[in-house]
Amino acid sequence: MTQPRWLDEREARAWRQFLLMQGQVRSRTGSRLQRATGLSEADYEVLVNLSESPDGRLRPSELGGATRWEKSRISHHVKRMEERGLVKRLACKTDRRGSWVAISAARRRAIERAAPVHVEHVREMFIDALTPAQLDALAEISEAILARLADGPEGCDE
Amino acid sequence: MTQPRWLDEREARAWRQFLLMQGQVRSRTGSRLQRATGLSEADYEVLVNLSESPDGRLRPSELGGATRWEKSRISHHVKRMEERGLVKRLACKTDRRGSWVAISAARRRAIERAAPVHVEHVREMFIDALTPAQLDALAEISEAILARLADGPEGCDE
Repeated sequence: MTQPRWLDEREARAWRQFLLMQGQVRSRTGSRLQRATGLSEADYEVLVNLSESPDGRLRPSELGGATRWEKSRISHHVKRMEERGLVKRLACKTDRRGSWVAISAARRRAIERAAPVHVEHVREMFIDALTPAQLDALAEISEAILARLADGPEGCDE
Repeated sequence: MTQPRWLDEREARAWRQFLLMQGQVRSRTGSRLQRATGLSEADYEVLVNLSESPDGRLRPSELGGATRWEKSRISHHVKRMEERGLVKRLACKTDRRGSWVAISAARRRAIERAAPVHVEHVREMFIDALTPAQLDALAEISEAILARLADGPEGCDE
């Protein structure tokens, strides 16, 4: 590295405020979700994706596509959820693409009951703080960064 | 709760893309930081704050103000960092406000060496993906959400 390209004032403000904000949003929505459902955000994300699939089940690769988690994280987290009785793994006999991850009907109803509570928290803490223009700007900013991360030289290293 | 106020398309897009983006930014900058320095993001944040203080030390309450972590998290994390030799706790004899958390001179130099590498990662993955107007918009969005979280009924519950 030659000369460090330090952040200027505008850049430092954006990065710093983003870091503070996302840390607080995560810890606040996470602790409310935990209190309301006993689930972590990661558990909840997996279960919502399963409950939104027509048969209440997805292949690990489909879960990976929906969550954008790396393969090893999916596999590790699903294993722990299975041990806690939150999901089941089903072997897939009709083709060779391996197993399904499935949610039970009872768990699906529990997630459907939790959803309005969770969405209310998200609204109070996040959505309702922003104008429609800011919501659009945030979506575009997020997409620009996601595109950058997908393209970057580090795209395959995780 | 009466009728759930589901997110509309614009709101759902902003929330979903924000969640995906922050998850990826965190895991990517976190893994690069770990590789470059052996430190977690939380370790790094504490050490940067200490290294930026004139005497290389801060009171736990000052660290809490800088990181916006809750008191119990500061106390827990600093204890673990002390056990790993990353910081020291100094008793404060001249007043009754308790201890300081301090960084050693050697560790301070290590953090100063790591900073240009870290800032380059932040720039590549985040800052350089955004226009100046987007940087300003993101700072304002973050500040609006932080203000909402500070004001909200949940402001004291963590």
